[in-house]
Amino acid sequence: MTKQRVLTGITTTGTPHLGNYVGAIRPAIAASQDEGNQSFYFLADYHALIKCQDPEQVHQSTLEIAATWLALGLNTDNVVFYRQSDIHEIPELTWLLTCMTGKGLMNRAHAYKAAVDANRADGEDSDFGITMGLYSYPILMAADILMFNANMVPVGRDQMQHIEMARDIAQRFNHHYGEHFALPQAVVDDHVAVLQGLDGRKMSKSYGNTIPLFLAEKQLKKHINKIKTNLLEPGEPKDPDTSTVFQIWQAFATEVQAAEMRREFEEGIAWGEAKQRLFALIDGQIGEARERYHALLASPELIEEVLEKGAAKARAYSAPFMENLRHAVGIRKIC
Amino acid sequence: MTKQRVLTGITTTGTPHLGNYVGAIRPAIAASQDEGNQSFYFLADYHALIKCQDPEQVHQSTLEIAATWLALGLNTDNVVFYRQSDIHEIPELTWLLTCMTGKGLMNRAHAYKAAVDANRADGEDSDFGITMGLYSYPILMAADILMFNANMVPVGRDQMQHIEMARDIAQRFNHHYGEHFALPQAVVDDHVAVLQGLDGRKMSKSYGNTIPLFLAEKQLKKHINKIKTNLLEPGEPKDPDTSTVFQIWQAFATEVQAAEMRREFEEGIAWGEAKQRLFALIDGQIGEARERYHALLASPELIEEVLEKGAAKARAYSAPFMENLRHAVGIRKIC
Repeated sequence: MTKQRVLTGITTTGTPHLGNYVGAIRPAIAASQDEGNQSFYFLADYHALIKCQDPEQVHQSTLEIAATWLALGLNTDNVVFYRQSDIHEIPELTWLLTCMTGKGLMNRAHAYKAAVDANRADGEDSDFGITMGLYSYPILMAADILMFNANMVPVGRDQMQHIEMARDIAQRFNHHYGEHFALPQAVVDDHVAVLQGLDGRKMSKSYGNTIPLFLAEKQLKKHINKIKTNLLEPGEPKDPDTSTVFQIWQAFATEVQAAEMRREFEEGIAWGEAKQRLFALIDGQIGEARERYHALLASPELIEEVLEKGAAKARAYSAPFMENLRHAVGIRKIC
Repeated sequence: MTKQRVLTGITTTGTPHLGNYVGAIRPAIAASQDEGNQSFYFLADYHALIKCQDPEQVHQSTLEIAATWLALGLNTDNVVFYRQSDIHEIPELTWLLTCMTGKGLMNRAHAYKAAVDANRADGEDSDFGITMGLYSYPILMAADILMFNANMVPVGRDQMQHIEMARDIAQRFNHHYGEHFALPQAVVDDHVAVLQGLDGRKMSKSYGNTIPLFLAEKQLKKHINKIKTNLLEPGEPKDPDTSTVFQIWQAFATEVQAAEMRREFEEGIAWGEAKQRLFALIDGQIGEARERYHALLASPELIEEVLEKGAAKARAYSAPFMENLRHAVGIRKIC
């Protein structure tokens, strides 16, 4: 049986928080150990340009995100880990696919439609402030996926439409030029761990309730102390199932540790004590990675080296495949 | 004084006819001798993909057009002559510019608006059958121009809007990321020689009235004999100013030859004789080029060699410039 090709894009904006770690990074890194698949992980820096026009921030984010994944143990021997903008075949394929994409398809993209709706609600022109980057990035995403003939793309439910679009575009290309692309499948995991934030709502940058992943120890402790609790005193039994502290504990604990903490909640553990234990648990799990993270950021040339190796691995696929595609559309002849 | 950078795109679809030769190719080749400018000529094969999904035709057209220009004496030592798809920085720059292009700008493109109007007239959905290639190719054109910081772009009046769009996009990029791009100027020559076709209307593929440039001698003669004339007999004076035969003669003749023929018309030259002379004039001017053309087509590896040399010359500009642009937007750091 041939291996499945799994492709995961990593957004290179913002600072990863514990919610990203538990929901996305940790499972993806665990999957990178699985030799049953052929996995591609890439830093989506061309995508970052759509939303961020601050070059320093684009650059720093890419470094930080790369350092995060490497520090947490992404197995770069087993997977292909690369930066999108190192693969110059991707923008070229984007153009080939652009010529095969109906404009009507882009009109139906959720992100674009939401922007149009917002403009209309404000009494603005439909396309006010909308860039061609926002409008046409589903084609870039299709190129990301099709470039490596990925058949499985783990995504959140909100991204499913993009995978469907990639399939549509691939089908049209295959129809015109022969069967070049595998049709990708979205893999949606509805059991993704969703972490609660400081205020008990889903941990999310937009709520401002996050605990950044690689805070300094002291800061991490401070943040954990800010997790919202009720006014129950030490000794009073507490309900683990409505407690953010317990919810986060569970995301990091073994089953045995979770059961123990549940008992301690029922026995009335003090909030301060529970938070102290939570800090120790998290810090124990990410402390070493944090050191590696800061060491990597202090020597960005090490990150660059890993990315260059990854680019070479990725281009071993993309370069000959692109040569075939150039031949297929007629801009080059393979004799 | 620094040299002007002049950029000319060559469409790689269709077979060049005498009208293309007189109106576009001949003056561009003459300009290629001018060492006062720094000229870039490119085969726009990415653009060909918008309209043509027949790979064999895309490939063959590119070869034929390259062979045409080379056979007619394009001075490739003095100019940079390259195939668009050899410059992988162009699609990459296209993406960078895509993120800097307002969707509203594309909505105003004449070609797109004409397609929408046609759909509406047919009672179809506005975007029916419109590809993203058609919709967004002004961004690719901007990348073609800005990649080489061309300040002068000779175009027909119908293309002026594209140069204005390239200016708009360049200005927005410069505003966000610093002054990287020169603002291109359209150079419109309103005195472009327009050749009449077999039926007396403008020679144009869409009228089916063309005389292909490199027809075999016999075929060229046949075509010229088909030029529409009136019923005046030999010996009857003829009006040169309403005659297609004379109009084409003028486009190839020296002033002295034109004056002579004008006199002969007034003296009642027979149509057959005038056409015979026209054939001899044209054949005398393009006969050798036709031989070179067929020799080149018989050895496409020679064309490929010229294109590869041209690509190397072009990439000596585009590669370091693109590196600067990557730094400017933040996806790469130049230390």
